[in-house]
Amino acid sequence: MVYIPMIMKHQSPGGLNGRPAVVLLSGGLDSATALAAAKYQGYQPYALTVRYGQRHHIEVDAARRVAAAIGVFRHVVTDLDLSVFGGSALTDDIDVPKDSRLEEIGSEIPVTYVPARNTIFLSLALAWAEVLQAADIFIGVNARDYSGYPDCRPEFIAAFEHLAQLATKAGAEGSARFTIRTPLIQLSKREIILRGVELGVDYSMTISCYDPSRDGEACGRCDACALRRQGFLDAGVRDPTRYRAGVHAS
Amino acid sequence: MVYIPMIMKHQSPGGLNGRPAVVLLSGGLDSATALAAAKYQGYQPYALTVRYGQRHHIEVDAARRVAAAIGVFRHVVTDLDLSVFGGSALTDDIDVPKDSRLEEIGSEIPVTYVPARNTIFLSLALAWAEVLQAADIFIGVNARDYSGYPDCRPEFIAAFEHLAQLATKAGAEGSARFTIRTPLIQLSKREIILRGVELGVDYSMTISCYDPSRDGEACGRCDACALRRQGFLDAGVRDPTRYRAGVHAS
Repeated sequence: MVYIPMIMKHQSPGGLNGRPAVVLLSGGLDSATALAAAKYQGYQPYALTVRYGQRHHIEVDAARRVAAAIGVFRHVVTDLDLSVFGGSALTDDIDVPKDSRLEEIGSEIPVTYVPARNTIFLSLALAWAEVLQAADIFIGVNARDYSGYPDCRPEFIAAFEHLAQLATKAGAEGSARFTIRTPLIQLSKREIILRGVELGVDYSMTISCYDPSRDGEACGRCDACALRRQGFLDAGVRDPTRYRAGVHAS
Repeated sequence: MVYIPMIMKHQSPGGLNGRPAVVLLSGGLDSATALAAAKYQGYQPYALTVRYGQRHHIEVDAARRVAAAIGVFRHVVTDLDLSVFGGSALTDDIDVPKDSRLEEIGSEIPVTYVPARNTIFLSLALAWAEVLQAADIFIGVNARDYSGYPDCRPEFIAAFEHLAQLATKAGAEGSARFTIRTPLIQLSKREIILRGVELGVDYSMTISCYDPSRDGEACGRCDACALRRQGFLDAGVRDPTRYRAGVHAS
């Protein structure tokens, strides 16, 4: 497979001389945009992908493509088997909900919720940040279009930032002031896509679908697909997602 | 190998009808005591051991023995490769310090510090707790004899408890009030051992050494061995630790 590097249209002058930052990268639309934002802000990105017992590895392949295309100092893919705990459609055998009405999405916590996922991911990012002597961690959480997930809310992020300071040698000794950076937290999906396009993100490399085919085609019907399609539609940007046969882009 | 079940001298009447609790179990002296305390308090213990890229697996074997002997509802051993991040004597190739003077131990953060370790462990325990609908998590941290580790302090535990509430569906919906239980946090090693003996813990099954031999004999010289030996001496309890040839129990 040939990966065509994305062109970072607005490469910051900070560039290679910036401070290191750990960026959580899932292979989805949001985290790709968060990575591009980190780079634009002049950070040296260290991308962290957690392979957490998903039923498919399509997301990890997407994360590798995105990391290579945007350009990172290092990309670590680490394994963590959350399926030993059970309890989620993304790690267990619960059916992914399909054909929800858009206005219903986010009104309650979805079955696709993975217990304590962002807490675990941020903890791992914190460990790496401390080793790298990085004070900044980027996460592409979004409280607006997906308010159903408790660990995407600003108050959760603030609580983690407080914890990070107490949890670490660097924090306890006062040599680092950890900051969890959430460039997308207040943006709509439309605004995220417009920001990403401005930064040169090639969204055809990303995958958001909860139930993709084996070769990475999106189902077009799960909640994540529904929000993503509507986002491209609202942004007036051509949807580059590869959908399964019979499903049409917005 | 034959495992002789420990006798829980003071088995709580709560026993099998108690509430579920996740107990972090390392195979060391402290976490074995924390597990015995959870059981004595009438909880149904679910033991969680994280195999985190240690240079040896002696600890995990000890955790299995302890879980079987004290008795747990389920014991999950999960893998997490923290060595991808580097940065610690326990996961990396830094030499474990030996022959420290006791009064120096804990005066600064030791090289054996694993970045964000307890944050990661508690996050995993939280995920499991939420799936089990358990509100309680036990961790054998101790702020007194090992104050060098930032993530053993009461303020860290309080911050995690606050985070847990915001991080989870159960917390956000108000169906659970998570509590991080730290039965040993203010005890000296002597007091921990006396408490454990009272609860019937067989410490010969546990291992504290940072640099054990391949068949689990303690070095007798690292900081963890030094604190443990002194603890048995101060408690007036025979030290059941198997030391390497040439090393004598206190």
